[in-house]
Amino acid sequence: MSDLEAVLAHVDVQAHDYVARLMEYVRQPSISAQRIGMDEAAMLACDIISERLGMEAELLPTAGFPCILARHGPIPDKPTVLIYGHYDVQPPEPYEAWLSPPFEPTIRNGRVYARGVGDNKAQHFAHILALEAWHTVHGSFPCNVILMLEGEEEVGSPNLAGFVREHRERLAADFVVISDGHLHESGQPVICFGNRGFVSFELHARTGSRDAHSGNFGGVMPNAIWSLVHLLGTMKNADGYITIAGLHDQVVPPSNRERAATDALPVDLGAVQSTLGFRAIDRPEDRPYYDRLMFHPTLTINGLHGGYEGEGSKAVIPATAFAKCDMRLVSGQTPEYVMRCVADHVHAFAPDVEFRPLQGTPPARTPIDSPYATYLIEAVRAVCGSKPLIQASLGATLPTHVFSTILGLPTFLLPFANADEANHAPNENISIDCFMSGIRISAALFAALGRSIRMTRKDPSHDPDNLRSG
Amino acid sequence: MSDLEAVLAHVDVQAHDYVARLMEYVRQPSISAQRIGMDEAAMLACDIISERLGMEAELLPTAGFPCILARHGPIPDKPTVLIYGHYDVQPPEPYEAWLSPPFEPTIRNGRVYARGVGDNKAQHFAHILALEAWHTVHGSFPCNVILMLEGEEEVGSPNLAGFVREHRERLAADFVVISDGHLHESGQPVICFGNRGFVSFELHARTGSRDAHSGNFGGVMPNAIWSLVHLLGTMKNADGYITIAGLHDQVVPPSNRERAATDALPVDLGAVQSTLGFRAIDRPEDRPYYDRLMFHPTLTINGLHGGYEGEGSKAVIPATAFAKCDMRLVSGQTPEYVMRCVADHVHAFAPDVEFRPLQGTPPARTPIDSPYATYLIEAVRAVCGSKPLIQASLGATLPTHVFSTILGLPTFLLPFANADEANHAPNENISIDCFMSGIRISAALFAALGRSIRMTRKDPSHDPDNLRSG
Ligand SMILES: [Zn+2]
Ligand SMILES: [Zn+2]
Repeated sequence: MSDLEAVLAHVDVQAHDYVARLMEYVRQPSISAQRIGMDEAAMLACDIISERLGMEAELLPTAGFPCILARHGPIPDKPTVLIYGHYDVQPPEPYEAWLSPPFEPTIRNGRVYARGVGDNKAQHFAHILALEAWHTVHGSFPCNVILMLEGEEEVGSPNLAGFVREHRERLAADFVVISDGHLHESGQPVICFGNRGFVSFELHARTGSRDAHSGNFGGVMPNAIWSLVHLLGTMKNADGYITIAGLHDQVVPPSNRERAATDALPVDLGAVQSTLGFRAIDRPEDRPYYDRLMFHPTLTINGLHGGYEGEGSKAVIPATAFAKCDMRLVSGQTPEYVMRCVADHVHAFAPDVEFRPLQGTPPARTPIDSPYATYLIEAVRAVCGSKPLIQASLGATLPTHVFSTILGLPTFLLPFANADEANHAPNENISIDCFMSGIRISAALFAALGRSIRMTRKDPSHDPDNLRSG
Repeated sequence: MSDLEAVLAHVDVQAHDYVARLMEYVRQPSISAQRIGMDEAAMLACDIISERLGMEAELLPTAGFPCILARHGPIPDKPTVLIYGHYDVQPPEPYEAWLSPPFEPTIRNGRVYARGVGDNKAQHFAHILALEAWHTVHGSFPCNVILMLEGEEEVGSPNLAGFVREHRERLAADFVVISDGHLHESGQPVICFGNRGFVSFELHARTGSRDAHSGNFGGVMPNAIWSLVHLLGTMKNADGYITIAGLHDQVVPPSNRERAATDALPVDLGAVQSTLGFRAIDRPEDRPYYDRLMFHPTLTINGLHGGYEGEGSKAVIPATAFAKCDMRLVSGQTPEYVMRCVADHVHAFAPDVEFRPLQGTPPARTPIDSPYATYLIEAVRAVCGSKPLIQASLGATLPTHVFSTILGLPTFLLPFANADEANHAPNENISIDCFMSGIRISAALFAALGRSIRMTRKDPSHDPDNLRSG
């Protein structure tokens, strides 16, 4: 029996206890947006780590809620993995939509239902339990591990970059693993090498000091909604192409390996269509499914409001209207440059419309041929019997750039949750199978790292040029 | 002293009494939209007409609130004028914005303040008092008069066309005078020969069964707001031209006389700009001011709503959005044809967007060389000392087509109210000077008709071809 086999056998025996302890962990509310239960949750996570892992967890302050940091090692010549998770959860509202209360964890049909169980408590708890199992069975870990949990992920990680800069030395690792999000919709495990970035902004049109009568002034008084309609029409055309000058200049097209990996991803458009209830896919029509989510920036109107909203008609020319928009950025794009392109465009096409920049997060992309990926792939294969899917990027945005850009580390998303975890929604859940599988994959990852020798830092996967070269 | 001079001298003597009686008349609420005071107001108007004019006013039922009809004559060989007004008023809300309660008429600075005093009670009451003055001074009227008051003008006159069709014989007249609206902004009296028509409709986009996350599905799930933005962009371009196929086909350009009259209208764009607080006039930029309100159809977005409306940003792809629109129609256009053009356009450019037609009212236009206009011009000159301005059309919409199209009669708007009457708004008012001047102009109009001999009905101004020939 190998070291890993002994750990996995122990995990199997402990399964019932692990689920019970997970339920205790998620019973504690930790709603960062509402400042509910945060201190207690942070203490609880510290205690869990410090009590049984042989590590000392520290609660480190930020300008917001504290971060938890724990470190094992260093064992010379062994690689160091930085595991990042978050102990805060989304607000549970609407309560009435929950079949069981969000902070009274309940098992139904092989799943644990509770707010935050999928996003992100069961996922980083799986890593904690894998470490505990290694420590219990062998009295030590096979590699170096840094555990880091933040308490503000659900409110946009406003202090994460500062924290990482400040504690750069204590976070010295070889690569980063983030277990958040979910398995591929097909049920297969997946490793994501990055995610899209994000900018958001508002457009405000004011064409008069008050609304006017459409009969008395129709043809004379300009209309704020028409201003926005015509401006927006210059930003993305009816064929779906973003037409803002310069916006695509930074975009790094997929490398040959990213291209090949993407083409190998299973696609079930029909399932997405029936979940979301749309007929035709968004324009442009000639793009492969995953290219839309990985390799092309988007321009989404999140909301547009102006003028009369009630029943029947009201003969009014609206003097004010606003649009809220976001864009998803792909590899190579920076929020600063994109925001400037949009600002310049608005200024050129509708100088009277006010452009209000909101937030920005850079995209992140780890080279798909990063040698550290082999450890993750090996771990998944050891537990699941087959290789994970390889996904160059998520469509959504995570604070990954903090690790990949500020720390310059290869960063991987290794999600454990089921695809229907309902994160950010009522009846959030994790399947017990997925949770247990996450513990096993984490344990196998530590084993794989333990069998290896630390690579030198001048590995090509750390070279920023590699990110750009395609 | 002429017959008219005797009447005008009597009017001067009665001025104080007339204002007091106007205040009694407007004290009675008659809010058609809220079904408040309608019966009492109709009875009151009937009594006023029947008691002192030597006419018998009848209350005639409709499917809604009744119409009041009174007729003097026929005196053979004398022309018959049909005077149309409405005894219903707009809802007075918001009450707190009124300096004196809307149904407690109050005099301040030479004006009577009350809901409905300008729109339309003082204006048709001026005609009633002019008739009363003629009857009191001379024991008879110099011409034939039909008085008609409806009770549903402020809710869109839903039963007016049916009423006019049903009582066609009793409404047999030579021409129609409607005293509603206000003097020209310059303070000069004005005669309007028509008004724009109206259609309203809604556009509803649904691109999915629920909103989706802009990261997880941006580029995949179509966006309902983008659907509307791109559709609307095909309906009117950024230069301000309506680009719906066929929409201008019916438009009758102004005749030479309409052109000349329009060019003679005084324009104070600066005053309009400072009232409404806009900088540049609406596009296209190269149109004369009154052409915009008379000779060009408009397409106004009254409201557009979809997606997130709250503070900050929400990363959502909206699955639904709607726009409420109206169009103002000009001479020659029919609501049915225009509605079909819009429906066809929506179907061609955005077959997934639902087109919901709402209301339609045809435009109305009396030939600017109608011989009946001379009576009105004469009356204004007799009282004011100068000719009125001649305006081919109002920008707004009135139910004038019922008289000009269904009855085929030349129809004129002869407004008495001050330009700042604040109709449909708090602190509605009429200046006592305007009210008294209205009584005098009405008396002078009857005098002018009394001096004339009835024209034959085959007068060219009744010929529908004349409307189209330009
Ligand atoms: Zn989350
Ligand atoms: Zn009105």
